[in-house]
Amino acid sequence: MPITLIRNALVVTMDPSQRVIEEGNILIEDGKIASVQPARSGPAPQADKVIDASGLIAMPGLVQTHVHLCQVLFRGLSDDMELLDWLRLRTWPLEAAHDEESVYYSALLGTGEMLKAGVTSIIDMQTVHHAEAGFRAIEESGIRAVTGKVMMDVGDGVPERLVESAARSIEESLELADKWDGAAGGRIRYAFTPRFALSCSDSLLREVGRIARERGAIIHTHCAENRDEVQLVIESTGVRNAVYLHQVGLLGPTTVLAHCIHIDEEEMALLADTGTHVAHCPATNLKLASGIAPVPEMLERGINVGLGSDGAGANNNLDPFIDMRFAALIHKPRLGPTAMPAAKVLEMATMGGARAMGQAHLIGSIEEGKLADIVLLDLNKPHAWPSAGVDPVSRIVYSAKSSDVVMTMVGGKVLYEGGRDGRGLTHIDEEEVLASCTAAIHRVARRAGLTA
Amino acid sequence: MPITLIRNALVVTMDPSQRVIEEGNILIEDGKIASVQPARSGPAPQADKVIDASGLIAMPGLVQTHVHLCQVLFRGLSDDMELLDWLRLRTWPLEAAHDEESVYYSALLGTGEMLKAGVTSIIDMQTVHHAEAGFRAIEESGIRAVTGKVMMDVGDGVPERLVESAARSIEESLELADKWDGAAGGRIRYAFTPRFALSCSDSLLREVGRIARERGAIIHTHCAENRDEVQLVIESTGVRNAVYLHQVGLLGPTTVLAHCIHIDEEEMALLADTGTHVAHCPATNLKLASGIAPVPEMLERGINVGLGSDGAGANNNLDPFIDMRFAALIHKPRLGPTAMPAAKVLEMATMGGARAMGQAHLIGSIEEGKLADIVLLDLNKPHAWPSAGVDPVSRIVYSAKSSDVVMTMVGGKVLYEGGRDGRGLTHIDEEEVLASCTAAIHRVARRAGLTA
Repeated sequence: MPITLIRNALVVTMDPSQRVIEEGNILIEDGKIASVQPARSGPAPQADKVIDASGLIAMPGLVQTHVHLCQVLFRGLSDDMELLDWLRLRTWPLEAAHDEESVYYSALLGTGEMLKAGVTSIIDMQTVHHAEAGFRAIEESGIRAVTGKVMMDVGDGVPERLVESAARSIEESLELADKWDGAAGGRIRYAFTPRFALSCSDSLLREVGRIARERGAIIHTHCAENRDEVQLVIESTGVRNAVYLHQVGLLGPTTVLAHCIHIDEEEMALLADTGTHVAHCPATNLKLASGIAPVPEMLERGINVGLGSDGAGANNNLDPFIDMRFAALIHKPRLGPTAMPAAKVLEMATMGGARAMGQAHLIGSIEEGKLADIVLLDLNKPHAWPSAGVDPVSRIVYSAKSSDVVMTMVGGKVLYEGGRDGRGLTHIDEEEVLASCTAAIHRVARRAGLTA
Repeated sequence: MPITLIRNALVVTMDPSQRVIEEGNILIEDGKIASVQPARSGPAPQADKVIDASGLIAMPGLVQTHVHLCQVLFRGLSDDMELLDWLRLRTWPLEAAHDEESVYYSALLGTGEMLKAGVTSIIDMQTVHHAEAGFRAIEESGIRAVTGKVMMDVGDGVPERLVESAARSIEESLELADKWDGAAGGRIRYAFTPRFALSCSDSLLREVGRIARERGAIIHTHCAENRDEVQLVIESTGVRNAVYLHQVGLLGPTTVLAHCIHIDEEEMALLADTGTHVAHCPATNLKLASGIAPVPEMLERGINVGLGSDGAGANNNLDPFIDMRFAALIHKPRLGPTAMPAAKVLEMATMGGARAMGQAHLIGSIEEGKLADIVLLDLNKPHAWPSAGVDPVSRIVYSAKSSDVVMTMVGGKVLYEGGRDGRGLTHIDEEEVLASCTAAIHRVARRAGLTA
């Protein structure tokens, strides 16, 4: 791998010891950050390849803490529904109708979208079948991922094709974990991903907890997204959602819970005590009329929170800049204008996600020794101007757009080059993916009975 | 002016009688839409210039219903404050420090930003002084505008330089109206723009009402944005904000009130009865922790609502696609997932704004005889894909981004060409504006005492 130098960038490091370097040089060797230093500290280091970032902002790659790559294909087909309708009338039938190729292209569509938007790492949840097709797409795209096959063995309104026996679900998950955990040079890590309390038996969840702990693997599931869901969990288990997940042994420092909107004080204390991570998906939570998660309160209690888009079937975008805007703004009317300032939001979208992935020592900030997951932004545009005297973090969170991303690099590899002369996505054939997705959604929607 | 044909677009007309034409031709003569027809209805009309819009969406230009062009220069300088602090500590001192050139470039920066984002018309509020510099920028930019100089003759915490006598304020407004109303071939219309109840005397407001009615001019002001503001209005007038504006004769079918967040049933009835228009600015209302306006309730009562960004000093973007996303999503948790569906939001961002401008017969939809204010979108991108079977209005509101705009046309003139080979802004020298804005904000911030 060539030694690469990113030169003269305004570096927003997200490293607490040196948050912003006005003009910095980032040296990249073997996919890692060899050094990050102010340009004025000495002559620029020698490199095989120099990326001139004068006038650009360099920031850590953004971490997408909760996404369903298999649902990207369903974008726009299920607007204006609440969670349980959204699952039963659209998303489950569509997931059940997926084939290997449609899962593959759905994942490529989503990873392509995210790489263009500055996302370098994702915590993903595939569907019940064909998860490997999704993993293959992730591998090819170059993105960093924690991902797993969805597990579900019970559930009201779940199509037969999505219900497996607990034993089969665990068996397949273990096979996939053995094959894919650590794949692509460690870029892919396997996670155990039971869907949510309502579609998993008690024994399946307990077994997942046991196995994942044993292997040190991430557990990724949903919690307390919707009022009706919470009520159904209480009816079937006698306790609130997070309490139940704790009872079956799922909470802990390697667990990521998406949403956590309708949680009470006791549940927040449980999350804090167990070191459980939360994925905040503000846009999806509004879109499905689910509510607004008490994120500032969680952060105050020391709970780690990352930022997520959720599925494109709900959101309908996988755009971390839009999600950052929502995360920054929606809490203010309730808690005042200083709730969720820009710095806290960017921290959530970088280090928060890195911690949730269990990779805070590897990614989430631009620091010597970490992996070179780096994004360059061109904010020399009317919508983010003036720059003079403006905190670059404010510019990133309150003004920037995903279209300002001019380079996305994962582990030192350039996966996207934007701008007028950019090569676009370097590992994904965008035109081929769009065409294949059109063919795929025709097929899948017809099989799902949504079109004739 | 050459006869122009936009060919083979998917036309989202916003004309209720033919909302979407799958493949349509739009013929433009003398700045107006001469015809809009399905391509299959006959041979394409002859034209001097043909714009091939195959695979693109054509939609009416978006209407920005509430903006302060003079504040675009202050973007990022006043984050995380409530309205009254935001005014007293930042926005008023900065406005007071404006000079002719800084007002001019601030307006060019904002119009450039908006044209790139598909905005073709704005309802603007300048500052107290140098309003003509802003009008000049509007004239040069090519955007359509209803605008006026801010009027304020009293107020706690208002810098001396921004306080005029009521007589002087009216005199200057009349001079400006005589000179600028109908300028640029009717593209610029003058509005009387008293700032808000707290910075205007009773007699100034009454006189504005009388004069504006006499001239048939738009009145543009703020109403019920913030709880403290509403409380102060009640303390000084004895009634709630909209009731007070009605008492001084300001409500009516040529009045546009920004915000209207904290209004009660009586006030809503007043707005409905008088035909008063509302500018909904969801992102700014969250950013300043002001709250969420009861927009679905207003629409249900027949109140016309347009969509606005407000100032870039608050929002911090003038991006109608972001504002549409917020408008669509923030009402759902309170009212359910079908509140504010995509079609209602796009209607608000086009015809709602056109009605507020008093120009519903001229703009807001793609219809024969209307002015050719048209935007082309390229949604053939991962973030807005698939397209098959997806309502184009859902794609525009829930998936599209301002960076998807590939052409913005006002009155038949192309003012922005995006995409890889596009010319960019055609009437604004973007580089010069960015450089001049940097110089201007240094000067203005120093004069305002915000920097040494």
